[in-house]
Amino acid sequence: MTDRINAQLAFLTEACRLKSILRATTLCDGSRRENSGEHSWHIALYAMVLGEQAAPEVNINRVIRMLLIHDLVEIDAGDVPIHGNHDSTAQAAIEQTAATRIFGLLPPDQAETFRALWDEFEAARTPDAIFAKSIDRVQPVIANLETDGGTWPAFNVTASQLETRVGSKVARGAPALWVALKTRIDAWFSPPLLIVRVKISRGHGGWPPLC
Amino acid sequence: MTDRINAQLAFLTEACRLKSILRATTLCDGSRRENSGEHSWHIALYAMVLGEQAAPEVNINRVIRMLLIHDLVEIDAGDVPIHGNHDSTAQAAIEQTAATRIFGLLPPDQAETFRALWDEFEAARTPDAIFAKSIDRVQPVIANLETDGGTWPAFNVTASQLETRVGSKVARGAPALWVALKTRIDAWFSPPLLIVRVKISRGHGGWPPLC
Repeated sequence: MTDRINAQLAFLTEACRLKSILRATTLCDGSRRENSGEHSWHIALYAMVLGEQAAPEVNINRVIRMLLIHDLVEIDAGDVPIHGNHDSTAQAAIEQTAATRIFGLLPPDQAETFRALWDEFEAARTPDAIFAKSIDRVQPVIANLETDGGTWPAFNVTASQLETRVGSKVARGAPALWVALKTRIDAWFSPPLLIVRVKISRGHGGWPPLC
Repeated sequence: MTDRINAQLAFLTEACRLKSILRATTLCDGSRRENSGEHSWHIALYAMVLGEQAAPEVNINRVIRMLLIHDLVEIDAGDVPIHGNHDSTAQAAIEQTAATRIFGLLPPDQAETFRALWDEFEAARTPDAIFAKSIDRVQPVIANLETDGGTWPAFNVTASQLETRVGSKVARGAPALWVALKTRIDAWFSPPLLIVRVKISRGHGGWPPLC
């Protein structure tokens, strides 16, 4: 029993390193960059609160477990910003190696269960994984909206890029959530026109009327 | 629907502030103090890995949900180190007010469910809450052991204090886990004696034999 517990504690101690992996996104108050440990907590809470947006066959408890482990590979592989440029095939290979090492710290039966759950998340084909991926995409959008666009200007993100890279994934797992987000996103990218009425006095050097 | 989602997103944005609440404990590498957001992720992962140590009637999915929300009140009430001195009655009152405000951001039905789950955790009487409290006590012990005692020297913590404040709570929910931890704790507080054999040459000014 002690050997088993020791292996479990070794895995949990290694997992602590996820708190030192920095993401591109900041906290909602913009004070600093978010780390992948606290991000994992936040999106598990997102799933708990927004679970009712999922398709009826989704098991939210499995989604929460998936989200708790979804970023652990970043301990070895680092975080890859969604709006950055990277070689996704090379990155996937690095993450596979990381998964083998990190989940391999657990006792063999648990290593297998955890790895299978992570593989399911990555494949994004089951209802649980599709909803988990939606939630993972929602939280950075909120953080960016809360910080006046956050990292969008730095990455030159356009509304149509957001639609392709984020919207399609969110809408796949949580359509009503994407409708609510899209209203906010559109307002940020195309703020309403400010209509100003100007009275121009003729003969005092003002601009001539446009009509 | 949008009003409901907006209330849920307002709660989730407020929750982000938990990432700025610092605890006494450091990360496992001692590089900085841990915040309560990443701590909440870490112990939810602890529950996922160590769930098999719980009594058979414990529902680990409920425990994980409990741990995800257990520290949210700290956004208003701050973190109270377990080995510090504080007025626990006054602190409990502050936390009750915080719970009313923070969970009250959610739509009313969810506010009620989340508050009930937090109340259950705080009361520590149900099997789920007892196990959740055990897990909450285990993680800082590991962080302290990983950093050569961590915050124990600063708080003048003794082995018997740990037994009372931590051991009793861990053993109540996860007895085998406490046995494993106790071995490590005892080794830290009472390191094995170093036995040195010294050969003393008579007549060369050495110390006389002890016998």
